[in-house]
Amino acid sequence: MSIEQKRPYILITNDDGHEAPGINVLTRLMMEIGDVVVVAPDGPRSAQSNALTVTHPIRYKKIEEEAGLKRYCCTGTPTDCVKLALNEIVERKPDLIVSGINHGNNSAINVIYSGTMGAVLEGCENGILSIGFSIDTHSLEADFSHFGPYILKITNEALKNGLKRGVCLNVNAPKANIEGIRVARQADGQWVKEYEKRTDPQGRSYFWLTGYFENNEPDAKDTDEWAILNNFISIVPTKIDLTAYEAMEAIKGWAI
Amino acid sequence: MSIEQKRPYILITNDDGHEAPGINVLTRLMMEIGDVVVVAPDGPRSAQSNALTVTHPIRYKKIEEEAGLKRYCCTGTPTDCVKLALNEIVERKPDLIVSGINHGNNSAINVIYSGTMGAVLEGCENGILSIGFSIDTHSLEADFSHFGPYILKITNEALKNGLKRGVCLNVNAPKANIEGIRVARQADGQWVKEYEKRTDPQGRSYFWLTGYFENNEPDAKDTDEWAILNNFISIVPTKIDLTAYEAMEAIKGWAI
Repeated sequence: MSIEQKRPYILITNDDGHEAPGINVLTRLMMEIGDVVVVAPDGPRSAQSNALTVTHPIRYKKIEEEAGLKRYCCTGTPTDCVKLALNEIVERKPDLIVSGINHGNNSAINVIYSGTMGAVLEGCENGILSIGFSIDTHSLEADFSHFGPYILKITNEALKNGLKRGVCLNVNAPKANIEGIRVARQADGQWVKEYEKRTDPQGRSYFWLTGYFENNEPDAKDTDEWAILNNFISIVPTKIDLTAYEAMEAIKGWAI
Repeated sequence: MSIEQKRPYILITNDDGHEAPGINVLTRLMMEIGDVVVVAPDGPRSAQSNALTVTHPIRYKKIEEEAGLKRYCCTGTPTDCVKLALNEIVERKPDLIVSGINHGNNSAINVIYSGTMGAVLEGCENGILSIGFSIDTHSLEADFSHFGPYILKITNEALKNGLKRGVCLNVNAPKANIEGIRVARQADGQWVKEYEKRTDPQGRSYFWLTGYFENNEPDAKDTDEWAILNNFISIVPTKIDLTAYEAMEAIKGWAI
């Protein structure tokens, strides 16, 4: 088999939409590794988690094509994008799905809200090596240049070593000054003070989502939050089996 | 302390909307246990996962009030409903959050798409005992009468015994003929053949989400899928820490 035939086939998506700087940086990086197909939302879909479009149909269209790259956009959520790509668009089953680079941190509990990681969990469900990349700034002028070499290293090692079925990667980077990489666990915490109440011209209340993340274990050096705050990239191996195995025995003892 | 003072304060939501039969059955059941506040979406929000409304504000309004019950509806997703309720609506921190009764099975990988379970994960993040109840039929004429006594038993035992921080319950019932309860793990599987392609009057393609769930381990008797198919209620203890701890060592050995 020639080198050419062995090039990985890579599906890329995100939740910031196909025009976001992050996905275009990621696309150029992945073109160094393999043949790329992008199927991304046609606009921002942040915090869409694993949401699916079920009350109306979705569509997609081709945006551009060049050697080693086909780009499409889709009217659905990030998870819709992966589903539609795998069912209708890809030429063969991808060797890899990458999502991002997200403009914003997806560490800790953010993993359950993130559209970026929703797409990754979807790839994982389908038995495909899947990685989400995010950077700890919402700026559309974010500088990804320091993150790029790490993305290539992590992706190449993931392709070489693989991951077990049901496991994917949640990779988050500080916005600058990367000191190295930490394999970490998801920090425990919650969002608090989440709404800003305003009054419309008719005198009725409405509520904007806002708030901040409260870390329950800020001193735990094995968490993703600690890594990012201390200038490390965090890699959290993430699973789609949400079973709390350690809780099963106690519940079996309930009087039910 | 009197019995009256000890009545649990229970927040209820769902993803089928506040008018769905399932949530109204659940509300009447919970009123046997405690004081109830319902904050549910103003219409169907199926498959909304943990999606959040971030691009526009949300609102809520009171629908009705009677002794032991206040009912509100909200323009957001199920997770928005829980967040808004906890931040703006409840009189004190609830002792319990229940979501459902969902019209449709949320076993196996459905847990990551489910708006019902999105609300439960949100409650769990906030350190509140949280349980999702679903029934294995999408019919709006579903008969919940066989499920009701089990819901009361499971809820009372959960209130009595509690769950560790980060653990909630995903409870699914067969649509009839319940043989008992199984504490189960999430079955491994994936959705396949997911889109029905149609052509609009202008000749353009559009895609409806459909498909079916493929169980990778149909003979495993310890899974939620097996339980439900064999007429048992499944209780899956479910966690919000998605870290694949068992995968960490291998990744630490990568050349990154």
